[in-house]
Amino acid sequence: MTTVRPARQGDGLALVETTRALAHFHGYHDGFKAVADDYEHALFCASPIIGALIAEENDVLAGSVIWHRSFSTNAGREIMYLEDISVLPAFQRKGVGKALMRATAQVALERGYDAIFWLVMPWNEVAKQMYHACGAELEADHTVCRIKGEALKALAQ
Amino acid sequence: MTTVRPARQGDGLALVETTRALAHFHGYHDGFKAVADDYEHALFCASPIIGALIAEENDVLAGSVIWHRSFSTNAGREIMYLEDISVLPAFQRKGVGKALMRATAQVALERGYDAIFWLVMPWNEVAKQMYHACGAELEADHTVCRIKGEALKALAQ
Repeated sequence: MTTVRPARQGDGLALVETTRALAHFHGYHDGFKAVADDYEHALFCASPIIGALIAEENDVLAGSVIWHRSFSTNAGREIMYLEDISVLPAFQRKGVGKALMRATAQVALERGYDAIFWLVMPWNEVAKQMYHACGAELEADHTVCRIKGEALKALAQ
Repeated sequence: MTTVRPARQGDGLALVETTRALAHFHGYHDGFKAVADDYEHALFCASPIIGALIAEENDVLAGSVIWHRSFSTNAGREIMYLEDISVLPAFQRKGVGKALMRATAQVALERGYDAIFWLVMPWNEVAKQMYHACGAELEADHTVCRIKGEALKALAQ
């Protein structure tokens, strides 16, 4: 029995477990630095920009979603960005991802958003099929650009 | 002479002009619905999640950036997402984009962010070269997924 609920205070460690599993799946072994307090702070501060959902199978942690507030310049309004959807390996292919997507859609509608967007690795056919089955449109691939650390400081000079 | 400054109240119309130009360049002719008040509201509400910069050439509107607060689950902290960087056609290839990127980096550092990320169309070689010259890393292409409107409502059922 899969249940999905909003993250509560104290769920930071569970979120580290699920998001780290996803990071490793994506090949980010060294780049994962988040600790439980980071999520606790971001989720339960005065004006959070992120939200999280926890999936459980018979009360055992099975997966999570972390989304954040985003903004569409084309629509001129806030939308939802799905930052991470993670299903732990032992619980994959059991409908947990779909249950998380459904609960995420419910949160989006409750908040008055009319769109959710997210990124998927082009090689992740299992995820792409699930998203397609959820009714998502898969658009053309985009290149992700990133600037950080010393390069960011140099650009600012 | 290119100057870049934070958007002020009353710049909503200028932002519509620049972001609509970018939407059209990206082929989104019908999908652009934003009006000046949308940006004014989002920028100057009590807890904005977006920010904007305006580039001018001798006091004439030349381009803009709209960024929003984002969150890296790997880093466990807030980062900056560059939603739109637009240089109006008459002002392209004059360093306006680079000036906007530099000012964006300054805002990011002022806010304590250590990373900015954004998406670029894989076919936009001019933009990619400019980003590379700014010190950005261009990562593997990702597929953009989106669910909205009736499909979003159906998923939530």
